[in-house]
Amino acid sequence: MTNLRVGVIGAGQLARMMTVPAINLGLQLKVFAENENSSAALAATVVGDYSQLEQLQKFAETVDVITFDHEHVPIAVLEALEQQGKSVQPPSRALKFAQNKLHMRQRLQQLGLPMPVWAEIKTASQLADFINQNNGVAILKTPIGGYDGKGVRVVREAAEANDWFAQLDKFGGSLLAEEKVDFVRELAQLSARTPSGEFAAWPLVETIQANGVCSVVKSPAPNADAALIEATTKIAQTVSEGLGVTGVLAVELFQTRDGGVVINELAMRPHNSGHFSIEGSVTSQFEQHLRAVLDLPLGETKATAAHAVMVNLLGTDDQNDFVSAYPRALAQFPQAKVHTYGKSPRAGRKMGHVTVTHQSEVEALKIAEGAATVLLQG
Amino acid sequence: MTNLRVGVIGAGQLARMMTVPAINLGLQLKVFAENENSSAALAATVVGDYSQLEQLQKFAETVDVITFDHEHVPIAVLEALEQQGKSVQPPSRALKFAQNKLHMRQRLQQLGLPMPVWAEIKTASQLADFINQNNGVAILKTPIGGYDGKGVRVVREAAEANDWFAQLDKFGGSLLAEEKVDFVRELAQLSARTPSGEFAAWPLVETIQANGVCSVVKSPAPNADAALIEATTKIAQTVSEGLGVTGVLAVELFQTRDGGVVINELAMRPHNSGHFSIEGSVTSQFEQHLRAVLDLPLGETKATAAHAVMVNLLGTDDQNDFVSAYPRALAQFPQAKVHTYGKSPRAGRKMGHVTVTHQSEVEALKIAEGAATVLLQG
Repeated sequence: MTNLRVGVIGAGQLARMMTVPAINLGLQLKVFAENENSSAALAATVVGDYSQLEQLQKFAETVDVITFDHEHVPIAVLEALEQQGKSVQPPSRALKFAQNKLHMRQRLQQLGLPMPVWAEIKTASQLADFINQNNGVAILKTPIGGYDGKGVRVVREAAEANDWFAQLDKFGGSLLAEEKVDFVRELAQLSARTPSGEFAAWPLVETIQANGVCSVVKSPAPNADAALIEATTKIAQTVSEGLGVTGVLAVELFQTRDGGVVINELAMRPHNSGHFSIEGSVTSQFEQHLRAVLDLPLGETKATAAHAVMVNLLGTDDQNDFVSAYPRALAQFPQAKVHTYGKSPRAGRKMGHVTVTHQSEVEALKIAEGAATVLLQG
Repeated sequence: MTNLRVGVIGAGQLARMMTVPAINLGLQLKVFAENENSSAALAATVVGDYSQLEQLQKFAETVDVITFDHEHVPIAVLEALEQQGKSVQPPSRALKFAQNKLHMRQRLQQLGLPMPVWAEIKTASQLADFINQNNGVAILKTPIGGYDGKGVRVVREAAEANDWFAQLDKFGGSLLAEEKVDFVRELAQLSARTPSGEFAAWPLVETIQANGVCSVVKSPAPNADAALIEATTKIAQTVSEGLGVTGVLAVELFQTRDGGVVINELAMRPHNSGHFSIEGSVTSQFEQHLRAVLDLPLGETKATAAHAVMVNLLGTDDQNDFVSAYPRALAQFPQAKVHTYGKSPRAGRKMGHVTVTHQSEVEALKIAEGAATVLLQG
């Protein structure tokens, strides 16, 4: 019997949610976790340090392809695995752009893609100039190491970045400054690509953030006309082909007042903006990711309902106990699909999500937010 | 943090498919398997002999509720667990009807439910009389131990059951004779009930058998009018309340020429006729079963699409290798949801299934059968 074995480095909720399509499709999923009590513990077969080549080599020998729950594995380690003939998807040549926001901007510029005004910043005086030229404010980012709002600052004076300038080597020798985009909303274009080059995009979604973390996703994005959808799909395809991305790619976008879009961030893995697809699409982002990294044909991405709305369960403190609220939440909202990740609670932490599919977007949002509210009381 | 722990006795595809909603809902699922290489191996935490009370006691101590992948655990063992205060769902008082088809017929008769003509048979002469009175043919069943067409014979002469009469003690001292129903089609009414008494039914489905094994399921059943649906839903509710069933109940029905229905078989667990619900219903039978046995509120059972069609992947020989056919099957049928159970192949064995949701029943069937055909070539 043929046995397709996928190895996932990282054992958070993304790896956890990959176990579902692995069970359905009869694939073998192995997880390389950092510790015993991970969100994907059910499938965690190895606990180790992902920065150690030797440990990953041993893990890689037991699977047909290596993929990721996060983007933090050192590129040198991945290159070494590739040189030994291991299939790493997405490959190191794509992931290096995900790991360095400055290199990402440089590459997207070469590809002619729409972006905010940006600049590489090496000195306080360069930063002061950038602020002056961009309405007195800059979004300053460390090229390396940021996620969910970390490693990002809104600065109006160059001096606000003195601590970062003092340790510039840690960030690769430069900072990245971007204009503060005057956006009307945020969008995300999810897609997947196989090593053979097959590409499939999901419907464009709107994402609503709270404190820099994704809070609500509406699929499809309200009032998105055909021209916008064509543009964002084309952007996703250009990015995935131009950067050599395989598996799921999320392109986070700002929509500006003139109706255009510029690229905010990229994620080369299943992404919070695609959780709706578990119930809201014929093929979920987790199934599509496994199919893509195994170079299997991609599944249909059509919506299963007129609307799907996802609301994140963000921890409020270290006492959240969603499961104790199940009796009330499930009784009040029998249509809600509740997902919890088995993580210990912490303020602001992504602990789970609720998705509702419905004919009406307003109703879907009401039900999903209602269920989330009750769960957060637990 | 509250932790809801479900223990499943049996580790076949039903336990395997229960792992999916357990992951989504953050429930802990533990499986008591008969051997290491089970279909639900991912969650198999104990390997043992389910007829040994002591082994089940130890397992039961680690979970909040015991439920089942099959109906074969001896009633005496379950009663002993219940006497020790363990929650067993469905309880032994319900399962004893599932384990003895004669007791089931007796109880359903008391409840006034529609059934084929039947009789308890202790002697060859009783059987000869039954055959004479029922158009020269009887469906003869061993009350204990049959499934998927095993323990069932079509007999026209009493002598055809001589071997069964010779070992009558093995079957509880009697056989069960039923008339050969002149049915136009087979239906199944799936439902779930909680220990607190909440009840929810899915849409009535049509099931098509091949060689006594379920082959195709159409949801909803074509041309089912409101009166029929009301009748079958009422039957399911009467059965589950009258027999004290909790969790998922499948009532298999024959539809007769006059449009009425009679009860064929019962299954007190998720059932092949409900696999369509994974994609075809807001709440799948596997999620509903976990919610029900934990006495959590039930989920909505509304259809997610106009039609869902499920086609079983029945092994053709001991060489089937579906996964090797994935590249062709998934490329040709991107809408098909393929499920394989990781079981070693054998002729007639349930190895997996394909579900397609679609606006058109004809298209759904075409796609599901097309995908199944390609997979069976692998």
